[in-house]
Amino acid sequence: MNNFKDDTASQAIKMEPPKVGEQDWTDIAAKAQTKLLNSIPREWRIPYAQLPQDEHQDVTSFPNDCGLLSTEEVKITESFATEIVGAVAAGEWTAEEVTTAFCKRAAVAHQLTRCLTVLMFDEAIAYAKKLDAHFTRTGTTVGPLHGLPVSLKDNFNLVGKPSSVGFCGWALEPCAEESTIVGMLRELGAVAFVKTNVPVAMMIAESVNNCYGRTVNPLSRALTSGGSSGGESALIALRGSPLGVGTDIGGSLRIPAACTGIFTIRPSYGRFPHFDARSGMRGNEAVGAVHGPMARSVADLRLWAENVVGAKPWRKDPKCIELPWRPVQIKEKPKIAVLWDNGIVTPTPPVRRALKIVVDKLKARGYDIVDWSPQDHAEAMELLGRFFVADGGKSIRKILEEVGEPFRPEMHDYEVAKELGVYELWQLQAVRTSLCKRYLDRWAACEGLDAILGPTTPYAAPKNGQFKNVSYTGVFNILDYSSVSFPAGVNADKAIDVYPKDFKPHSDIDKVTQEDYDPAAVHDIPVSLQLTGQRLQEEKLLALTEKLVAHLA
Amino acid sequence: MNNFKDDTASQAIKMEPPKVGEQDWTDIAAKAQTKLLNSIPREWRIPYAQLPQDEHQDVTSFPNDCGLLSTEEVKITESFATEIVGAVAAGEWTAEEVTTAFCKRAAVAHQLTRCLTVLMFDEAIAYAKKLDAHFTRTGTTVGPLHGLPVSLKDNFNLVGKPSSVGFCGWALEPCAEESTIVGMLRELGAVAFVKTNVPVAMMIAESVNNCYGRTVNPLSRALTSGGSSGGESALIALRGSPLGVGTDIGGSLRIPAACTGIFTIRPSYGRFPHFDARSGMRGNEAVGAVHGPMARSVADLRLWAENVVGAKPWRKDPKCIELPWRPVQIKEKPKIAVLWDNGIVTPTPPVRRALKIVVDKLKARGYDIVDWSPQDHAEAMELLGRFFVADGGKSIRKILEEVGEPFRPEMHDYEVAKELGVYELWQLQAVRTSLCKRYLDRWAACEGLDAILGPTTPYAAPKNGQFKNVSYTGVFNILDYSSVSFPAGVNADKAIDVYPKDFKPHSDIDKVTQEDYDPAAVHDIPVSLQLTGQRLQEEKLLALTEKLVAHLA
Repeated sequence: MNNFKDDTASQAIKMEPPKVGEQDWTDIAAKAQTKLLNSIPREWRIPYAQLPQDEHQDVTSFPNDCGLLSTEEVKITESFATEIVGAVAAGEWTAEEVTTAFCKRAAVAHQLTRCLTVLMFDEAIAYAKKLDAHFTRTGTTVGPLHGLPVSLKDNFNLVGKPSSVGFCGWALEPCAEESTIVGMLRELGAVAFVKTNVPVAMMIAESVNNCYGRTVNPLSRALTSGGSSGGESALIALRGSPLGVGTDIGGSLRIPAACTGIFTIRPSYGRFPHFDARSGMRGNEAVGAVHGPMARSVADLRLWAENVVGAKPWRKDPKCIELPWRPVQIKEKPKIAVLWDNGIVTPTPPVRRALKIVVDKLKARGYDIVDWSPQDHAEAMELLGRFFVADGGKSIRKILEEVGEPFRPEMHDYEVAKELGVYELWQLQAVRTSLCKRYLDRWAACEGLDAILGPTTPYAAPKNGQFKNVSYTGVFNILDYSSVSFPAGVNADKAIDVYPKDFKPHSDIDKVTQEDYDPAAVHDIPVSLQLTGQRLQEEKLLALTEKLVAHLA
Repeated sequence: MNNFKDDTASQAIKMEPPKVGEQDWTDIAAKAQTKLLNSIPREWRIPYAQLPQDEHQDVTSFPNDCGLLSTEEVKITESFATEIVGAVAAGEWTAEEVTTAFCKRAAVAHQLTRCLTVLMFDEAIAYAKKLDAHFTRTGTTVGPLHGLPVSLKDNFNLVGKPSSVGFCGWALEPCAEESTIVGMLRELGAVAFVKTNVPVAMMIAESVNNCYGRTVNPLSRALTSGGSSGGESALIALRGSPLGVGTDIGGSLRIPAACTGIFTIRPSYGRFPHFDARSGMRGNEAVGAVHGPMARSVADLRLWAENVVGAKPWRKDPKCIELPWRPVQIKEKPKIAVLWDNGIVTPTPPVRRALKIVVDKLKARGYDIVDWSPQDHAEAMELLGRFFVADGGKSIRKILEEVGEPFRPEMHDYEVAKELGVYELWQLQAVRTSLCKRYLDRWAACEGLDAILGPTTPYAAPKNGQFKNVSYTGVFNILDYSSVSFPAGVNADKAIDVYPKDFKPHSDIDKVTQEDYDPAAVHDIPVSLQLTGQRLQEEKLLALTEKLVAHLA
């Protein structure tokens, strides 16, 4: 399978680390990969011959069929997070058996998609045993997530574990501190068991880096699982984790969720605790990174959000807003504005069709549907691009240079960027504030508007290496709006997903995007859409998505 | 009076504008001053001979004694904002008579302290008449602030009026837009009637600039009314306004309130609408400027806060947080940590004594009193200083240069600053986040802590030109904590406010500060203290201050 051939991780699979100097990035990468592979328990390693081969692109059925998981373990891992915490709290399953089942399945998932960076099976099972002992002793759970295995994006710090953030230089360095959310998770009873792969600095929309290589999409390994939380999305889509924590600065939760047909919510800044999550652009506050849950249902996202916010994260994270999880009432017939096309990149045919189908269903339900203009979206994306490279790529360059690691081609913008002075940054920030004001006024003028519905990305899922544009998600990072990505209940269909005869691309980037579109490659891949509310409306967004998704079944 | 002699405004009083080129800053200053003075209705101008002379420092009784205000107008202007809205809503006073009374008194206040920059008496009285007509016609008020005159710091924009922000170059330019809070005020029924003086760029702790000169303290004109909202504080202390709106980026609400013995609250960023308030450092988001009310009682502050937040400012200001005004319950015996000394500048003797008296009273009431260490305060101030000049003073320099205006000596740091690159800014921001985390953890470790009590400034009020250090307020701008300044019920007393025998200053800046201390100059000046809560705890802070102040009478 060619996507395995063009990167460093494939060398690790074959255990042939390049022979170079001690501190060289290639040597570190080889060591890190070897360490990672060796951390898979021997009995859970799939012999190379039994692994699906290159031509086998959809590997979603492999975990159930490979014989490693018992019937009960299959049942456990096919369950939703809400079901798991219910069953453990009811004493039907132990935390240990649940955790073991997911450890096994995650090990398989990794061997199929290279989705992991750190395996913590021993610690996780040991902690699960403690939870079980507590439950046996007291008859109560330690918290609302008691016994729930949770996977963590690579940039969440755990004491003694590395957070590579896609950099070779960090891949072997154990962290001294833990991220706020990690400690909160433990207190809620959740079991952290793996960390998942990301792109370099988490600034590519696919999960590829020079250390752990490329994570691929289990629905079709010719496609990307997206990025930057693409280790999470691949793992969760394979049911190697019931719920994961990713992050988003330009679409990094929503893009991978959309590529793999799972659910996520990008909260507004300050809603969920993000303190001491590692970044490749430390101290950047022009665009705040946020964390959010990724899962297979809205109910699972809510389980997370409700309990994390319920644990009063503002007492631990100085950037968190003291805003409890609020009850919401959704209108009988919500008002939804539809963003058909952002004028930058045209949604590919499956996405256009899915959006049309969903809108028609909502109209049939009596929803108040209006069109939404992409006014200001191009300017927002221009700003986002400039904020990302405002330091001239210096933060990233410094980390790379320490071990002589080169910029990957996807990071070209960071390699060639010129650092701005603070004066110029302030001017951009003032422009952003004006833009946010215009957008807010436009929302208010569309009286009673509940949410904007549109594509999450232009793609069902692009082929590996072909993710070109984050404009559908990035605009809401500039605005700091709460935003959900959800599978629309429509799969790409090569027979009908074709361009209209009069199709004309908006621009060069659009042209290339449409040229990349390969109906056969994405055939049967689920299409996701994005539902966006205003700032800090996470409760409303989840409730609205749940209502909407119920109509799509 | 010498403080009138050393600045440009004194020239205007004598109507002797310097004769220089059309676009030169001195010419603009002269024009702006002439325009301002001419905008005082002729019948409200106090003949020079009747004005208190230089040796007459306390001018607080002048407005009542000068004969310009009727007995009823004296009564109106001596009233609290809450009393005024009550009387107007009850039909006891008309909005017109209330507004006229405050216009008159503000005109007098200006002639005593030079506190104003823009007079809008005609528009204000016309709007008041409209409010009265509405009330007569409908029997109802247009909003909860119906008929309340409100003064605005110079940087709030009104269409057609200039916002100089202390710059000559802006002093004659009418604004095309209005600040969000201005429109909200109108909808609430308040009557904007004057704008008040500020220092250059609002970045000096006294209110002095090259255009309108220096505002002085009506309690003693040898002293500063503070800055940057020092036009407001002088005006309100003279009861020329029942309630004003100032702003704060390093203490600009709290410092002038403390210098004149009035009340204010600095909210956390995003609580009150600040959109389109003018800044000399546009786009600076490293330290967010906020607006807050200034008044003569906590109840008046709450009248403002409750109604402004109640009007849902997040629908109009994209930076506002959707957080309604919440009911709060204050403990019977709150836990208060006392910051006796921040280790940077020692509180001068009256402040130390006031703090001791207040603490003793709270102890007597059974409050749980603990000491608070100034740990991290010096680092916070170092950061604040670096953020302020992060653009190398470029924003301010550009505005000055347009009309050839020189940097005032107080702005030396801005004149000599070197612009940072964005990378360095990011590093400072990361340091700030760590500091905020340590502070939050320290607060949490002091179990049950409700607030920190300490000085607002090291001074009762310093002499004009002697305000040297904003470290007691600035630390809470770095932390973004909600913070109130209130008069402690203790006045400076030259007979007893002396240094202990073993006094040693912390540093050079402390030494100079203490050398400046002149017991006779501040004799009988009220001392203010600062009460600080965590982020976004404005409701709690006001309730706590109200409870505390009741013990001090």
